[in-house]
Amino acid sequence: MTLKLSSYKGTRDLYPSDMVLRRYVFDGWRAVMECYGYKEYMAPMLEPIDVYAAKSGEEIVSEQTYSFTDRGGRQMVIRPEMTPSVARMVAARRQEMPMPTRLYSIANFMRYERPQHGREREFWQLNFDLFGDDGIYADAETIEIADKLLRYFGASDEMFTIRIGDRRLTDYIMKQYLGLNDDEAGRAIKLLDKFSKMPREKFDASMAEVIGDEALIKLNAIIEVKDIDALPKEVLDSGVADNLRQLIAILRDERGIKNVHYDPKLMRGFDYYTGTVFEVFDENPENRRSLFGGGRYDGLVGLFGVEPLPVVGAAPGETMFIEFLRAHNLIPDWVKNGKYYLDIDYRIIPLGEGADTMKYASEVARELRTLMGGQKGSVSIDYTSRKSGAKTKAAIKATADFIIYIGGDEVRNRTLTVKNVATGEQTSYEFDSIEQMARDAFQSKADRYAAKFNDVEEA
Amino acid sequence: MTLKLSSYKGTRDLYPSDMVLRRYVFDGWRAVMECYGYKEYMAPMLEPIDVYAAKSGEEIVSEQTYSFTDRGGRQMVIRPEMTPSVARMVAARRQEMPMPTRLYSIANFMRYERPQHGREREFWQLNFDLFGDDGIYADAETIEIADKLLRYFGASDEMFTIRIGDRRLTDYIMKQYLGLNDDEAGRAIKLLDKFSKMPREKFDASMAEVIGDEALIKLNAIIEVKDIDALPKEVLDSGVADNLRQLIAILRDERGIKNVHYDPKLMRGFDYYTGTVFEVFDENPENRRSLFGGGRYDGLVGLFGVEPLPVVGAAPGETMFIEFLRAHNLIPDWVKNGKYYLDIDYRIIPLGEGADTMKYASEVARELRTLMGGQKGSVSIDYTSRKSGAKTKAAIKATADFIIYIGGDEVRNRTLTVKNVATGEQTSYEFDSIEQMARDAFQSKADRYAAKFNDVEEA
Repeated sequence: MTLKLSSYKGTRDLYPSDMVLRRYVFDGWRAVMECYGYKEYMAPMLEPIDVYAAKSGEEIVSEQTYSFTDRGGRQMVIRPEMTPSVARMVAARRQEMPMPTRLYSIANFMRYERPQHGREREFWQLNFDLFGDDGIYADAETIEIADKLLRYFGASDEMFTIRIGDRRLTDYIMKQYLGLNDDEAGRAIKLLDKFSKMPREKFDASMAEVIGDEALIKLNAIIEVKDIDALPKEVLDSGVADNLRQLIAILRDERGIKNVHYDPKLMRGFDYYTGTVFEVFDENPENRRSLFGGGRYDGLVGLFGVEPLPVVGAAPGETMFIEFLRAHNLIPDWVKNGKYYLDIDYRIIPLGEGADTMKYASEVARELRTLMGGQKGSVSIDYTSRKSGAKTKAAIKATADFIIYIGGDEVRNRTLTVKNVATGEQTSYEFDSIEQMARDAFQSKADRYAAKFNDVEEA
Repeated sequence: MTLKLSSYKGTRDLYPSDMVLRRYVFDGWRAVMECYGYKEYMAPMLEPIDVYAAKSGEEIVSEQTYSFTDRGGRQMVIRPEMTPSVARMVAARRQEMPMPTRLYSIANFMRYERPQHGREREFWQLNFDLFGDDGIYADAETIEIADKLLRYFGASDEMFTIRIGDRRLTDYIMKQYLGLNDDEAGRAIKLLDKFSKMPREKFDASMAEVIGDEALIKLNAIIEVKDIDALPKEVLDSGVADNLRQLIAILRDERGIKNVHYDPKLMRGFDYYTGTVFEVFDENPENRRSLFGGGRYDGLVGLFGVEPLPVVGAAPGETMFIEFLRAHNLIPDWVKNGKYYLDIDYRIIPLGEGADTMKYASEVARELRTLMGGQKGSVSIDYTSRKSGAKTKAAIKATADFIIYIGGDEVRNRTLTVKNVATGEQTSYEFDSIEQMARDAFQSKADRYAAKFNDVEEA
């Protein structure tokens, strides 16, 4: 029997060069989250189905989850998201945990989707949540961090916007202002969620069917509003927009986040959020779309039978985030090349397989691993019996920066012949000056990096 | 409906303090692996069932896996181990990858086991493998790294031993030396695997039933051998032990690994390995047991329909590794305390909720986050409307090192009142000297760390 070489549909194999990019992104996320005082946690990959059934829409549980019955008869789900798990964890230690509590995780999830561009069945996501603070400043912090996550990687104002809404304001508009009943409001919200994905005429026609012509005229007067003060006087007078107006002011005036605006079409899984919702939009003219979002959900912790706890958070996904960085040319060369500029990979190539040669090669490796000290990089040995040319080729393919040849002469004289892969230069060192060799190697890489950097500066 | 607070049976929730320990271990593993030139990869959490059926024993696939049929009718398994996945990945790029290729990953796995001490249904594991080198020096490197992984965390010779065997030698002993047929050899091997878990008399009786009294006498002469040269002359003369003898010599003489010895009872999933096998044993007198193991498996890559490729590797698990560190007192205080000595967590406590206070608090946070620069740590704000005492308590619970109080006076005078949690000292700073404050904070932590370190040195 021959087994399949490809990974399961909608999932990816990450080879080392792919992992460099993932780690670049995840390390940046970690740095931002920890700077804001968020602490890392982790939950199991399986949860019982009821936590999702209680929280999410029907669709997600019934069609989009990987669910199965375990050998003990329990209905389990491979987590499709982190929020219910972290809510459960906090509920379990409701009394012991200091409040407010800031938590984050970076983990993988599975959803049974038809694989398509930017949507995978297995995906990785950052989740960060602030528990135990129901105030507007907690909302502001969440959005400030969303902004910072992008800026950390070099994003600037024109590349993205942050669109904000408020579940309570939307509720008011649907029910009080437009006079819809629950069912109509629900269907109208589903249509609004698809606004950008359908032709305007079709949207109008479908919406009129649900809410009637009169309400449609009123809705259309609101739908493209970006300034909250442009909402109808009746809505403003009710006071229901005050919270959102204040939030936008805090972000713009205190936090220096200018590219934020109100969006009445912003829905985001409506039955889930209870207050502020927001989405970060990629403003790349060729690919305007939602990057990630978040908001306030104060109802979830209480579902676990403890006193309810307010929560606000967000969850950027890896795939969209990387596509944003790529589209805006924010991925540094060293990440594309799969290695940090100053990391040095040494490959030792013994010429011949005599015990003496191997022993000396291993001595060199040990010494060099110790002496590299603070430098990052690696020392590996090619023990195979191939010809020196084949070994050299493989070393270069494996991103070696320096190749250390060890043949009979080197063993006898306790020396090393070191080839600088970038320059082709070969230098001989005594064993006792390995430390000097490591210093020279570092200097050579640093010089080349500086030269490259100057080229970029001058260009 | 009330949802369950506990995690799924056999899985764990990791709160921030648990994550500090996990990251301490994983970061150490990464440092060792990368120093030896291994590159990180990642595979999907699901694989089709056939890759395990082709490779593992019946038991693992049928009883120990989380398997289910996906909505497309595919029989999938939540990965119970990494080896088949990484073999598939390498097979898929058999031609492009430089050989030898060194790969590692740190990932989670699931097995349907009865949860017990040290055995969990979801567990994390390091996997490292050297592909494309069938020589004895590749085996030696794998064992050298196994040794280094423990020593990196401070383990020393008396804490553990490395036991080595060889599938080809075991085969010879079973078939040529003891004269067993395939079925008898298979059953004898299963019994040998349980040797340490049953009373000697019961072992002898069961073994005699399988292989007969005569073979048992011959086996018993071998079973406790630790020095390979103490094997019967007939076995030694066959040359089948030469490879293992040479490997042990390389490890002892070239690599300085003294606590390694031959163990004829070492089996490790026998139908899987093709040459060298080894296990790292915890020699804690109260808890002698296998910590992790590995070996050579040259048959797996070829199962994917490409030219076969030799592989040698190992897979330490997180749980056993941490128990080893704990038992030998190798977990540093800062890990136990959940924070690196020199990390500084600042908590800003606004006294009152006026817009001016909040604005100034956010200005201080921004300035401090920028000025902390290279320092590690965090700045968080408590926006809640609780009393200052409650906020202070929560800050201390959340491991704040310095609390910055911002009340009306501070806003008016643009100052900060900073409390050093460890000493109780309160100091006032101008806003413009926040950088000085950060320096003082760092110095204070560094002094306390140095004092603590000196105490330990003197004791």
